[in-house]
Amino acid sequence: MPSPESLARAESLIRTIPDYPEPGVLFRDITPLLADASALRDCIDALIEPFAGTFDVVAGIEARGFLLAGAAATVAGVGLIPIRKAGKLPRPAAAVSYALEYGTATIEAHDDITAGMRVLLLDDVLATGGTLAAGHELVAHLGGEVVGTAVLMELEALGGRALVPDTHSVFVA
Amino acid sequence: MPSPESLARAESLIRTIPDYPEPGVLFRDITPLLADASALRDCIDALIEPFAGTFDVVAGIEARGFLLAGAAATVAGVGLIPIRKAGKLPRPAAAVSYALEYGTATIEAHDDITAGMRVLLLDDVLATGGTLAAGHELVAHLGGEVVGTAVLMELEALGGRALVPDTHSVFVA
Repeated sequence: MPSPESLARAESLIRTIPDYPEPGVLFRDITPLLADASALRDCIDALIEPFAGTFDVVAGIEARGFLLAGAAATVAGVGLIPIRKAGKLPRPAAAVSYALEYGTATIEAHDDITAGMRVLLLDDVLATGGTLAAGHELVAHLGGEVVGTAVLMELEALGGRALVPDTHSVFVA
Repeated sequence: MPSPESLARAESLIRTIPDYPEPGVLFRDITPLLADASALRDCIDALIEPFAGTFDVVAGIEARGFLLAGAAATVAGVGLIPIRKAGKLPRPAAAVSYALEYGTATIEAHDDITAGMRVLLLDDVLATGGTLAAGHELVAHLGGEVVGTAVLMELEALGGRALVPDTHSVFVA
């Protein structure tokens, strides 16, 4: 597990962008953290450490979740499952739609998630929790078991934890 | 470097989907390979091995390139740069547009690519080469140096190598 000092250094690399994507929103930009080799590795370690030895694959949610899930899969020595936005996969085996502020979104996965597979679900940010909750449902549809959910950053004011109460957050803002 | 047998096993996991995304196209679906821990690790090793020690970061092209770049970054112990489709980054420092069969596409990056940074550019597939060539241009705009380009699979018939002649392909179809 990385030291508190290492994690504080990594957190300091997250850039806050005011009024993005719309006025009044503070966007947390993790790209400077990802670009730093030590910060990236520390965060991946912190992301997966509570679940060590309990999962067969990591599933990442498109698109920023792919960056973290790819990194986590090779660090943990497990396989990697992309959970994609609708229409991106040639042979979706399950799809789940969920509500957005305006309208709905759909995520899909292939049957590479199989019955009994233990899945660690990863994304960059826990905001309203809608996407991660849909990810849980998607894994369950395919017979897999979500053994944990982890995000780099939780935006506490948005209350997403109500939908995915077991989520492990490396940072909370 | 993984053995030829290991790589042949990994290649056998790539699924060919006829008539996707349109009639007459053979789509190469790498998700069963990614889901297999050994195949994933062997392919990441094969992807980056020719460039060992020569790069400071890996840059992955949205979206499937993110999966491979994330995995490669932690294996190599370097930072990770997402090259995104237009409109996804809050503070793009450079953008490059390129021609598609119909219309154009644009990719963008943040200034996390800095002057003199040695970049290994990764994507899943080399098809027409337009996206990877634009990736080269994007890195150069920011003052970085592309020290190598690597893909999991090259679709030889599409001739993309003409645009990015130095590309290292793990598999050729």
